[in-house]
Amino acid sequence: MRMNQGVEWSVHVLLSLAWLDDDEPVSTASLAASYELPVAYLNKQLQALVRAGLLRSLPGARGGFVLARRPEDITLMDVVAAIEGREFAFQCTEIRQHGMGQEAPQSAFRRKCAVDSAMQHAELQWRKALAAKTIADIRAEADSHAPSAARLARKAYGRA
Amino acid sequence: MRMNQGVEWSVHVLLSLAWLDDDEPVSTASLAASYELPVAYLNKQLQALVRAGLLRSLPGARGGFVLARRPEDITLMDVVAAIEGREFAFQCTEIRQHGMGQEAPQSAFRRKCAVDSAMQHAELQWRKALAAKTIADIRAEADSHAPSAARLARKAYGRA
Repeated sequence: MRMNQGVEWSVHVLLSLAWLDDDEPVSTASLAASYELPVAYLNKQLQALVRAGLLRSLPGARGGFVLARRPEDITLMDVVAAIEGREFAFQCTEIRQHGMGQEAPQSAFRRKCAVDSAMQHAELQWRKALAAKTIADIRAEADSHAPSAARLARKAYGRA
Repeated sequence: MRMNQGVEWSVHVLLSLAWLDDDEPVSTASLAASYELPVAYLNKQLQALVRAGLLRSLPGARGGFVLARRPEDITLMDVVAAIEGREFAFQCTEIRQHGMGQEAPQSAFRRKCAVDSAMQHAELQWRKALAAKTIADIRAEADSHAPSAARLARKAYGRA
């Protein structure tokens, strides 16, 4: 089970925009060039981030994308949900009711399947951790490892 | 991102064998029939469980599968790892080093990428929860919801 690569791209794009710390839009072409990503496929991810309310798209020749919220208000869960959707990875198809299950009384199926409950509980721990980490947290950590990153992002996007 | 359906099937198969609580093998055909699953594709999952050391395969006309460990010693993490592999769902491709990253000093990349760290930390919470839940736990919960299930499993597999 592999997460869409668009999640990695999206977090890095949001991080780059957080480094700019201004309201000037950055074009898809600039964002793609700054990480050597394919423009069309990156654009598909950016549109998903717009639909999810994480980016704003500004039209026009000098248009592009800006953060729609502060980096403190964008979590990794928001990004994963925008790109991968909100469905659980484990999808119960109620096989307990098939085959031998057909002989069980209906009361046996009143409660959610114990397999589904356990799998969902585990995924919720994952989601909770994703929801606890913001783009601002990641920016702070990246800044401490790579103090030059913010400056390079500003340069790549034509800021002074 | 969707988990292989073989995970659901596998947990139910392990649960069924746990209900039998004996050392008599159950054939792929019986296991498939008891949940109305396709024999060939179920067999592929069962072979993966054998390779992972969760099932033992006994040869011969009366052969089939038995649990290789006690239900207390088989966790959901074991099952997910057997079917999905042990790779993280989030795979970092180090895009931080591409494009504008090429201008950064090598020291900027000495520590693991902050995006990868955060994603991996979150997935570890998921894995920890999966590793904390055993087939015996699920059997106990299923028994409390559906007291007839163990009897139906024994009947489906020809036990008295």
